[in-house]
Amino acid sequence: MSEHDAGFKAALEEAKQGASEGGIPIGACLVSKEGKILGRGHNMRIQKKSATLHAEVSTLENAGRLPASAYEGATMYTTLSPCHMCTGACILYKLSRVVMGENNTLVGGEETLKRAGVELVNLKNAECEALMKKFIEEHPDDWLVLMRGYEDIGEPPKKGTE
Amino acid sequence: MSEHDAGFKAALEEAKQGASEGGIPIGACLVSKEGKILGRGHNMRIQKKSATLHAEVSTLENAGRLPASAYEGATMYTTLSPCHMCTGACILYKLSRVVMGENNTLVGGEETLKRAGVELVNLKNAECEALMKKFIEEHPDDWLVLMRGYEDIGEPPKKGTE
Repeated sequence: MSEHDAGFKAALEEAKQGASEGGIPIGACLVSKEGKILGRGHNMRIQKKSATLHAEVSTLENAGRLPASAYEGATMYTTLSPCHMCTGACILYKLSRVVMGENNTLVGGEETLKRAGVELVNLKNAECEALMKKFIEEHPDDWLVLMRGYEDIGEPPKKGTE
Repeated sequence: MSEHDAGFKAALEEAKQGASEGGIPIGACLVSKEGKILGRGHNMRIQKKSATLHAEVSTLENAGRLPASAYEGATMYTTLSPCHMCTGACILYKLSRVVMGENNTLVGGEETLKRAGVELVNLKNAECEALMKKFIEEHPDDWLVLMRGYEDIGEPPKKGTE
């Protein structure tokens, strides 16, 4: 698992697409065990005023209804540590692995994923973190509102934004 | 918490609405701590070919983006034990309580909800169970496919359908 994986590149492209739409720059991509991209998507919270279309949920939705065999051994690439809902979605579909771009911006349901036997990889990717840093700098109110009292999406960030 | 709660009645109406649409008869309703209905919805897997619009996710989506204060102390009523994704969604929004109609048809993420400190109430409602039983009897292939190898939504049922 590396930054050179097609799934990671697609997730990062999705995050950038989200940024270009004025949205929260988080992207994801679901890849089968054979390496086929099954779906991709990005956070649509701002664009669609959605409370549930996080990057991973958008990705599963965009992938459509698939047989369980399609999810077997599959990997969810996501540019940011998945929140509790997205964590649960990965467990629901019995994905084998979650590869995250970074978890410095926030830490989601990583312990729950580990408990469910899902392999977790953190690529510690600077570009994913930079996208979020830029969003937070340019939309400080949106971000503080998200983190402090509006649609909380995870634990407080480890670094500085408080 | 009882079958007479407005939230439960709304969730059950939603499940019946789903049944009338030919869908999986699972409904939900989100109620604020003051007793106000914030949103309601039903499973749209068949109707919208959706992989993520389970009853609880539909409900949160239909409720729209709300301030965190709206979710504080809130209760998710659902006619069936919530799956892992819907469990995570309830944890994400820090809901106080999940009231389920029944868990004989399947058991979702109840242990995860308890671990997260979410109060769980099982109304053991015969009508909720009967709706699912009727759906399973009328759509045995759909249901077996769901439970056996297609979009698994929980642990195997405790009773008989295997």
